[in-house]
Amino acid sequence: MTMLDREKRDTSHPTLPLGIDALQRIIDRGGAEPGTASIRQMNNLVNALEQAFDMKFVRMEFGIPGLPVPPVAVAAEIEALKRNVAHVYAPFEGLPALKEEASLFVKNFMDLDLPAESCLPMVGAMHGCYSSLMVAGRLKRERRTVLLLEPGFPVNLLQLRVLGLECATLDFYDHRGDRLVEAVEQRVRRGDVCAMLWSSPNNPSWIVLRESELRGLARICDEHSVLAIEDLAYFGMDTRVDYFEPGRPPYQPTVLRYTDRAVCIVSSSKIFSYAGQRIGMVYVPQRLMEMDAPELADFHGTALVGQALLHGTLYPTAASVPQTPQHGLLALLRAANSGDRGVFAAAAEYSRRAKRMKAMFLDNGFRLVYDNDLGEPLADGFYFTVAYPGFDDGAALLKEMLRYGISAITLATTGSCRIEGLRACVSLTGEPQLAALEERLALFARDHS
Amino acid sequence: MTMLDREKRDTSHPTLPLGIDALQRIIDRGGAEPGTASIRQMNNLVNALEQAFDMKFVRMEFGIPGLPVPPVAVAAEIEALKRNVAHVYAPFEGLPALKEEASLFVKNFMDLDLPAESCLPMVGAMHGCYSSLMVAGRLKRERRTVLLLEPGFPVNLLQLRVLGLECATLDFYDHRGDRLVEAVEQRVRRGDVCAMLWSSPNNPSWIVLRESELRGLARICDEHSVLAIEDLAYFGMDTRVDYFEPGRPPYQPTVLRYTDRAVCIVSSSKIFSYAGQRIGMVYVPQRLMEMDAPELADFHGTALVGQALLHGTLYPTAASVPQTPQHGLLALLRAANSGDRGVFAAAAEYSRRAKRMKAMFLDNGFRLVYDNDLGEPLADGFYFTVAYPGFDDGAALLKEMLRYGISAITLATTGSCRIEGLRACVSLTGEPQLAALEERLALFARDHS
Repeated sequence: MTMLDREKRDTSHPTLPLGIDALQRIIDRGGAEPGTASIRQMNNLVNALEQAFDMKFVRMEFGIPGLPVPPVAVAAEIEALKRNVAHVYAPFEGLPALKEEASLFVKNFMDLDLPAESCLPMVGAMHGCYSSLMVAGRLKRERRTVLLLEPGFPVNLLQLRVLGLECATLDFYDHRGDRLVEAVEQRVRRGDVCAMLWSSPNNPSWIVLRESELRGLARICDEHSVLAIEDLAYFGMDTRVDYFEPGRPPYQPTVLRYTDRAVCIVSSSKIFSYAGQRIGMVYVPQRLMEMDAPELADFHGTALVGQALLHGTLYPTAASVPQTPQHGLLALLRAANSGDRGVFAAAAEYSRRAKRMKAMFLDNGFRLVYDNDLGEPLADGFYFTVAYPGFDDGAALLKEMLRYGISAITLATTGSCRIEGLRACVSLTGEPQLAALEERLALFARDHS
Repeated sequence: MTMLDREKRDTSHPTLPLGIDALQRIIDRGGAEPGTASIRQMNNLVNALEQAFDMKFVRMEFGIPGLPVPPVAVAAEIEALKRNVAHVYAPFEGLPALKEEASLFVKNFMDLDLPAESCLPMVGAMHGCYSSLMVAGRLKRERRTVLLLEPGFPVNLLQLRVLGLECATLDFYDHRGDRLVEAVEQRVRRGDVCAMLWSSPNNPSWIVLRESELRGLARICDEHSVLAIEDLAYFGMDTRVDYFEPGRPPYQPTVLRYTDRAVCIVSSSKIFSYAGQRIGMVYVPQRLMEMDAPELADFHGTALVGQALLHGTLYPTAASVPQTPQHGLLALLRAANSGDRGVFAAAAEYSRRAKRMKAMFLDNGFRLVYDNDLGEPLADGFYFTVAYPGFDDGAALLKEMLRYGISAITLATTGSCRIEGLRACVSLTGEPQLAALEERLALFARDHS
């Protein structure tokens, strides 16, 4: 297929909208309704639709990094493979050089003083979050509830279920600033909460918690002995601000600035577009590493939180993080620490796309659901949220948009209280898809005015 | 350092035995007694001893593959990296090509008919075993006990603890043949057992379960609704038999020949010396994949065992196996399937070492603890077990052997009932270490006759 053919195929399509009966038949065959489908199920459904209708959809359902990982990571992995590391177990606490470089990274970009021992590689942020939740749920027998600040990453809910933990929720939509802190404290006072978990920049609303909010949440953690689990999957991707100059403010906001009763999980998937090799970092303050929680020992063979995470969780679940991704991440952190901004290029590209896509949606009668960040405009990042007048149910809106060759997931599946909305991800929309999106949104608007 | 210097350093040492007080001081500093230390702790202790006494130990404590991974795996990983796979999430059920090749592998080397969907890559056999145990413990609420056939891999015990499962044990030392099957059935009749777990060839006794034993265990699983978890970490390494001709008998013995109520976990760490990149396969018969266990849904969001393993366990714990190790293992399986015996070279080398090392121990007054395989001589493989007359306590024997620059772990830590014994691993003893071992065992024998 030539480049021209491919582009043509990317944007050519049968007459839109697609027939509703044909669409429903394919949905029924897959067995998952768009309104409740998991991201992966939605992904499968859209694959099936593309095949059945012989057209490319504008795919906004899956947060899969669409840009290649920076070449330094690839080169470092290849170099490590050539040095014959593949047969040797890595230390389960991580390669010493990686831990040192990560310690420097948090100093340079978060202005935190964490020793190398506090920097734990895990098999992706997924594994880091699973491990953190597991340990959180064993700190105190009577505390079995995790407070999720919503919306969020749908798999966190599955993780709680797998771990047999209870779930409580609060939505950023109507809880920001003092109101957020007050509502969290009120919920925590019941005494059953072991941990609170949120992502900021937030998947999918793209709000970013302010320093005052982080300070308030940190205070609650200290006063009520609750663990904060801060998901920084979108590290540095509040593109209203430039966080990428090493050793110079502004620094990535983090709850670790205000409490030691927190872990911070930094995925490599988005910031470095390094999702395929499964490595993320969990940053654990030294005081938490050494914290003595006697009830942990029953399950993890040690009362020390740090040991429980490493020897008692990472080791029996996966032995260690694979060798060569550790070398790859080491190279990325080293480049970042030395001021090579090229490794952060993905963030700028996602931001550029988000700006254009949001404008297209707004021009065609959509509105943003989460439409401001504590009174200020949102940053342009990996996700945004949309709704359309006359659709009270995101599932119905999504099904209608599928007829126009556009996919997403419902906000309901992200835990949001705004069931009218959809989450849109910008990662797979390069130039041909942007052109198709503009055309298809215009058709949608024409038919739904 | 020149090659000669290095060899000299490998075998030169202070006057042996080392002073007992100096030894104890270093043990005390590490905080773990040799008798109860985990493998990793023992590893750290021996590192400290080597530094303190400026000598190389003959290291038999750690089952770390000492041979490089076959070059086809390295080449395949490099090729995949160059093709830019590192930013893309792999499908969580595994790359289709890997699953197809694995299906062919089990046909060629185990004579099993499993479709590609039954072949699940996990983040090492550790992850495969953790996931299998997790699902096993959720099949029936009242079944919370896993029956471990001992001795075994010490981390399995930690896995049960982490998962909040109970543990029952039976030892191969006094249970083989009909006696094994009878004892297992008697224990299972109590109704609390959800799964039974064993490794064969056995870590560390190197006994190999016979077809009649596997048939008996399979029957019990079927009749009592118990899941068998077969750890084939040492696939093909019963070196009395040649299992490495594709498509021709003899085939690797497996319980999957006799029951669908079993999973078989095949590590890549030993057979392919591929430990560092963390990928193992879990083989799940299609009937088990599709088995409906309603109680699973509470925890894993699905009642189907296969879905619970993939979408309900692998996904929330690690998202997927990293990309490039999947390509590496694919290349290894493809080579094996096409008759390239070079990829199995590690097994032969380990066997050669075991034969020589066992002879050295026996010549110097040691005896094998697990000394026969249902009346036949043991194979020569990755591990063997030793004891010395006059030492009733493996911990005391180990401490004494450390004074002669030889490390191991106690059989007690492997779950064995034979607390007088030690487990010796052959993986790190190349030629210089073999010479040192011979010399040091002779010194030991001279001082303990």
